[in-house]
Amino acid sequence: MITSNQNSKIKLVRALLGRSKERREAGAFVAEGVRLVEEAVKANWTCRFALYDETLSERGRSQVEGLKLHGVDVEEVSASVMKSISETEAPQGILTVLELTQLPITNHPNFILIPDQIRDPGNLGTLLRSASASGVQAVLIPPETTDAFAPKVLRSGMGAHFRVPIHSMNWNEIEKFASGLNVYVADMDGRSCWETDLRQPGILIVGNEAEGASESARKLANGKISIPMSGETESLNAGVAGSVLMFEVMRQRSVNIE
Amino acid sequence: MITSNQNSKIKLVRALLGRSKERREAGAFVAEGVRLVEEAVKANWTCRFALYDETLSERGRSQVEGLKLHGVDVEEVSASVMKSISETEAPQGILTVLELTQLPITNHPNFILIPDQIRDPGNLGTLLRSASASGVQAVLIPPETTDAFAPKVLRSGMGAHFRVPIHSMNWNEIEKFASGLNVYVADMDGRSCWETDLRQPGILIVGNEAEGASESARKLANGKISIPMSGETESLNAGVAGSVLMFEVMRQRSVNIE
Repeated sequence: MITSNQNSKIKLVRALLGRSKERREAGAFVAEGVRLVEEAVKANWTCRFALYDETLSERGRSQVEGLKLHGVDVEEVSASVMKSISETEAPQGILTVLELTQLPITNHPNFILIPDQIRDPGNLGTLLRSASASGVQAVLIPPETTDAFAPKVLRSGMGAHFRVPIHSMNWNEIEKFASGLNVYVADMDGRSCWETDLRQPGILIVGNEAEGASESARKLANGKISIPMSGETESLNAGVAGSVLMFEVMRQRSVNIE
Repeated sequence: MITSNQNSKIKLVRALLGRSKERREAGAFVAEGVRLVEEAVKANWTCRFALYDETLSERGRSQVEGLKLHGVDVEEVSASVMKSISETEAPQGILTVLELTQLPITNHPNFILIPDQIRDPGNLGTLLRSASASGVQAVLIPPETTDAFAPKVLRSGMGAHFRVPIHSMNWNEIEKFASGLNVYVADMDGRSCWETDLRQPGILIVGNEAEGASESARKLANGKISIPMSGETESLNAGVAGSVLMFEVMRQRSVNIE
């Protein structure tokens, strides 16, 4: 059992829960809690090692057995060490260190999301969760958006990270990727999303609520769409606005519109 | 200038930022920060008093002048006292104590939201904000839902509290209120919201994501609607799911559907 904060695994986990630079350099990230570990296992995600403590629930314990059966290096740590590294207020007694790999993007994807300048981890996680639920086939993360593999993003993503390809790209790469696709940017001054035909393969760019979309995003876009709102001073947070738009795309593509 | 934590105004503010019982007994609540104070002023909300400190921005200072012109009792407090009572990590140097009054509900409202068993203040605030933006005319808060006038709900509501009538009701009162209206409850097993006609005056009930809608809500409902999702294990948080549904109601009512 690991009882020291100086153990090399503990030091690695602490680093990976911190800055994105550490995650990039180590090529790994941390998934914490029973639900996220379950999603990672279900997706057959490559796992370097797992740690658990005595507070772990029954459901978590059967996960530990499952991981061991799959040949994963699983070690017990003392509850105090687990508490000292945990990112959450109520640690669930289990975490895994996973390879920072990218799920492959399908050929000719027809629905792509770009969260643009999204700096709030909770909002980014919400967007990823809604992307997964609305059939988005790839999420492209530009340099100005917060790291998608930060602990808070994983938490609010609720497993979306293991289901939707998430690729970091600079704007040159995004431009190449986008060639031949419709690119819509969410914009207060845009055309109503309900009156815009969103059925063709395309990219949806959602900017942050304070600044809207970036210059690079605007250059790339060939259309602006908005969510009509009642009242003058209304706005929505980026996570909610993006979700409403993604489900509108899904609606148009799944319902017979004349 | 107030420099003591024992000052009666400071003690009142601290109590009002705490439990809902304190707010009910005092018949007051606190709006903190430049943006919320602005919304309260714009709505002509009755203000008992306001406090500010030296860290206040220019925009906030002109608010202080405006409040004084309206005869509001405005007092400066020391920055350390303000910090000790502030609910936010980055206090903006201004707060107001407002009357806990209810905006009147229009006769024959055609779009009502019931957030059912919503315990997370951030989710409730998100629902209120989307309600305001999607034309909801009244929000009814059943006993099991968290207090709508708690600081975190106000913060994520972004001024919705001053634009949409929010009324606490028990289920008997809700039942009376609902008579003659369509009542739809959000439910994973419900009919697709895209294939359900939501144009008639009605009530939308959004339950919490863990437990779904309550027994009382189900008894009241005459229809269940869902958001179609891609993938089997998908779910949305209650704030996002409710927002998508509210904007679907708005869409159906504003777009010509054959």
